[in-house]
Amino acid sequence: MGHEEIRRKLAGLVPFDAGVHDKDFLLTWQYPDRTIRAVLAIAEILEDLARADVSARVFDTGLGLAIFRDKSTRTRYAFRAGCNLLGLMTEELDESTSQVAHGETVRETAAMVSFLTEVVGIRDDMFLGEGHKFMMQVSAALCESFEQGVSLQRPAVLNLQCDLDHPTQTLADLAHLASRFGGLDGLRGRRLAMTWAHSPSYGKPLSVPQGIVALMTRFGMDVVLAHPEGYGLVDEPLGAARRFAAESGGAFSVTASMEEAFRGADIVYPKSWAPARVMRERTRLLRAGESSRLADLEREALASNARFKDWECTADLMKVTRDGRALYLHCLPADVTGVSCVAGEVSREVFEQHRLDTYREAARKPFIIAAMILATRFRDPAAVLAGCLDRAGRRRLG
Amino acid sequence: MGHEEIRRKLAGLVPFDAGVHDKDFLLTWQYPDRTIRAVLAIAEILEDLARADVSARVFDTGLGLAIFRDKSTRTRYAFRAGCNLLGLMTEELDESTSQVAHGETVRETAAMVSFLTEVVGIRDDMFLGEGHKFMMQVSAALCESFEQGVSLQRPAVLNLQCDLDHPTQTLADLAHLASRFGGLDGLRGRRLAMTWAHSPSYGKPLSVPQGIVALMTRFGMDVVLAHPEGYGLVDEPLGAARRFAAESGGAFSVTASMEEAFRGADIVYPKSWAPARVMRERTRLLRAGESSRLADLEREALASNARFKDWECTADLMKVTRDGRALYLHCLPADVTGVSCVAGEVSREVFEQHRLDTYREAARKPFIIAAMILATRFRDPAAVLAGCLDRAGRRRLG
Amino acid sequence: MGHEEIRRKLAGLVPFDAGVHDKDFLLTWQYPDRTIRAVLAIAEILEDLARADVSARVFDTGLGLAIFRDKSTRTRYAFRAGCNLLGLMTEELDESTSQVAHGETVRETAAMVSFLTEVVGIRDDMFLGEGHKFMMQVSAALCESFEQGVSLQRPAVLNLQCDLDHPTQTLADLAHLASRFGGLDGLRGRRLAMTWAHSPSYGKPLSVPQGIVALMTRFGMDVVLAHPEGYGLVDEPLGAARRFAAESGGAFSVTASMEEAFRGADIVYPKSWAPARVMRERTRLLRAGESSRLADLEREALASNARFKDWECTADLMKVTRDGRALYLHCLPADVTGVSCVAGEVSREVFEQHRLDTYREAARKPFIIAAMILATRFRDPAAVLAGCLDRAGRRRLG
Repeated sequence: MGHEEIRRKLAGLVPFDAGVHDKDFLLTWQYPDRTIRAVLAIAEILEDLARADVSARVFDTGLGLAIFRDKSTRTRYAFRAGCNLLGLMTEELDESTSQVAHGETVRETAAMVSFLTEVVGIRDDMFLGEGHKFMMQVSAALCESFEQGVSLQRPAVLNLQCDLDHPTQTLADLAHLASRFGGLDGLRGRRLAMTWAHSPSYGKPLSVPQGIVALMTRFGMDVVLAHPEGYGLVDEPLGAARRFAAESGGAFSVTASMEEAFRGADIVYPKSWAPARVMRERTRLLRAGESSRLADLEREALASNARFKDWECTADLMKVTRDGRALYLHCLPADVTGVSCVAGEVSREVFEQHRLDTYREAARKPFIIAAMILATRFRDPAAVLAGCLDRAGRRRLG
Repeated sequence: MGHEEIRRKLAGLVPFDAGVHDKDFLLTWQYPDRTIRAVLAIAEILEDLARADVSARVFDTGLGLAIFRDKSTRTRYAFRAGCNLLGLMTEELDESTSQVAHGETVRETAAMVSFLTEVVGIRDDMFLGEGHKFMMQVSAALCESFEQGVSLQRPAVLNLQCDLDHPTQTLADLAHLASRFGGLDGLRGRRLAMTWAHSPSYGKPLSVPQGIVALMTRFGMDVVLAHPEGYGLVDEPLGAARRFAAESGGAFSVTASMEEAFRGADIVYPKSWAPARVMRERTRLLRAGESSRLADLEREALASNARFKDWECTADLMKVTRDGRALYLHCLPADVTGVSCVAGEVSREVFEQHRLDTYREAARKPFIIAAMILATRFRDPAAVLAGCLDRAGRRRLG
Repeated sequence: MGHEEIRRKLAGLVPFDAGVHDKDFLLTWQYPDRTIRAVLAIAEILEDLARADVSARVFDTGLGLAIFRDKSTRTRYAFRAGCNLLGLMTEELDESTSQVAHGETVRETAAMVSFLTEVVGIRDDMFLGEGHKFMMQVSAALCESFEQGVSLQRPAVLNLQCDLDHPTQTLADLAHLASRFGGLDGLRGRRLAMTWAHSPSYGKPLSVPQGIVALMTRFGMDVVLAHPEGYGLVDEPLGAARRFAAESGGAFSVTASMEEAFRGADIVYPKSWAPARVMRERTRLLRAGESSRLADLEREALASNARFKDWECTADLMKVTRDGRALYLHCLPADVTGVSCVAGEVSREVFEQHRLDTYREAARKPFIIAAMILATRFRDPAAVLAGCLDRAGRRRLG
């Protein structure tokens, strides 16, 4: 894509207010549609610039800080790649080396690591009722630090996955869908099945299905959530999904049948998660240090999962989707039957057919993260991107 | 602050010789006053530049290497932020992944990691009699490497806390004091109480109190060191404190009463530390692998601490300071009674009143570290800073 | 060295085709002589530029990714320093934090971390029969990712040590030899003794001796490999050594006597390694989880080593080399008798005499790695380097 074409895209964005300048990016349902559209548009232009070998290094120095309270390869890389694309050096705090903890010490640690920091990316998805709270605590501490003259700027907190939402994933998913269905407006009326699927592990976070139903309902889609009885999600994103569906002219329904959800679907997203009840009990037991009860809980949860081995995305099931060829989404890694486990979320045949497409879906993540940084750190991100074109610095000087 | 004002400040520094070009920064008492003043002046201008959005990226490429032989969040971040401010990428060696060790292998490892390195920051504070020695070993190895044509330059060793001194902390403290009392000259005659305080943990390093008494006595202050019997510091910094007090027209005294130290104080620094005797014995037992004796030592040390629970910085005690409102300093994290422990160094009430101020104190650390890098790596740091103003590159291009 | 002299060296390289553009750098014997010569020439010019304070920052943004499947200080640092020299930020995946594994997940993980990555450096040397295979798997996954539009570019895979070869080490060794013997052409007819040496540890990789015999035979040298019976290397590099010796007019022979190999040698490289048979069995037992058999294997291997304690590079043995003063090479760290062990690869006297020279040998590694990156990432590396001279950006702006 030529510079002039990118410039025309940019012109279409002005006047531009993403609505999150000097704020955080935590839960998609907290922000208006224009914020969602802005992040997607910025991400697309950042990718265009990268393909055109135009440097988007808008920070000469500066830090992006990551706090991972769960293991991560993909999200860690995506955050680092997104920061690097804009010129931020990344630094990581992990609890074993840094003693970051809930409670009183959060605000102290947050203040200590904010002096020259532009963005703090946090992943805290394992404890239902905790992750989002932790991010809010960090955010409050960063506000206080800036307002009291401790730090030079107030870093933005980016949610890299919490107990409620996983916006970097779901916005990458949305960008992927937009690219396949002729833009966001092409999603209107499309049927998306967000369904539970069987996994031989327990304790998978709820953030992806919650984030998906709360985000995809905004664009006039017909979103169906399917899960066995007892695998319900938490109320807040479900409420957001119902509200957005009503506002956007889309639909949101819940069913206990995977097949029903798949029927006529344009897009399927079969993915395992733990029941909210189990995740809450898990948080309580971990906090109380009741490790023997924890083992019991795991046993019960796995036994429950085992009753729903037929919740697998198979070639037969795919046949009931629209024209038998729905787009398959997954946040990866998937539990693939016969590959990573005996009985998983998806059959080998279906996964292999869609594998590269799930990689393309994931490839959008660093650009989404970089777009969130631009949207939160600059008053006029479009002008910042236009500046990149004007300077025409190259990513690779060879 | 406008560029012209920063330029005027800079003009006041020329002609400029910080006295540590191509050297290390290890123990403040090894350097003349002009070095101390230079680091503080550079740090202030670096902060001015950052606030004015002027890039101080004086390294196009280059590495800052950190060796942490103890856990650290704050110092690790401050080192990385200071390096990033100047354009250095940071890299960390930790002993678990890199097999850095005392003895013969030090000089080999030091040589191996010096080829393109500008600065090596080391934290080695847990073993009395060892930390400073280790830094000297690394320094000697780096010298040999450079002189023998192995590395392109001789990296500076920065002391990020050793068993004797903690110069990045104490210089940040001094900058904080200078900002509150009208510059370094405004410190003349001020009374500073560096006092032991109770902690429910044992084995805290002695480097902060030692560094504070050896540094603050240089500027005509009346420095009082207070601790219970048996909690004495090591001789070298005490000797430096006495010498500097005599030279600067200040005073240095030692007392066994917290209240006596606080009486009339302009500044109080209540902080726990382990007796030098205990720390030496700890080093010996660890080296000998006598873990059962180590447990005995910890028990004895904690029992000893417990006899001095009244060494707590309370609101009542603060009343005896000058006008009842001395400035409270702490290197963080503090043991706050009723917050992080049952009986600690400071009451919740006093700490909460001064909390944000301790953050502002800490916020100077990245700039102090960057200033040490400029002072050790460049013959004329003022000219380097003037170059930043001349280029007027921006930190954020948005 | 002045800019004009560097420019003249560069002119001597044009027209230039390193033969590995958009490829990997895995095993030296896969590439033609011109690739080897190109990497050495580029590395030399990069070092010239660094000494002349000319920035070689050819990437404005971009990532260098390291995957270390074994502990490493030196190679980790060299990779980071090489990347930093060119402007790449480095990121590390380790298996404990990232769940990288052999098999199906390799291609997924490889795709996930390739979006904005220029180079992937891998060290996987501990499992004979596995390391090179793993790199090939990653390479295939990166190819697929790029061809299928997942990543913006196809990152090069750099072998930072596998079970077969250790090209960053052996090319640094070769550059060191070229600097001592008047260039690559000065190596013709020189005798190099690559010999096994005693170590009190077992399980050292075979990649260095294999890489050395397969590389040094290309330049007309008389290469002698010496080891006790049972300590043979794998076939592929031995075959390459025989072929290269025949083609280059050099020689390659194998002997079971350290002294015979040393006799008349210009260069000696005494270094321990495990028998290929032991390493293969080790891989098998580890995979089968047979830990008790693994302990037996270690015991046997150490007992075998102990029979060859006289395979030590002593001052007496050095006397039989050419004029009694052969150049001593080692990849470090060496097992030095009386220093790091009771009976090792080399006597304290010999090692101390050559110690600094082994550091100079190692110092070339970051430049070799940077040269591999330039050779694989740019069609015309000489033009890229000429661009650095034209821009004349400085590494340090002071």
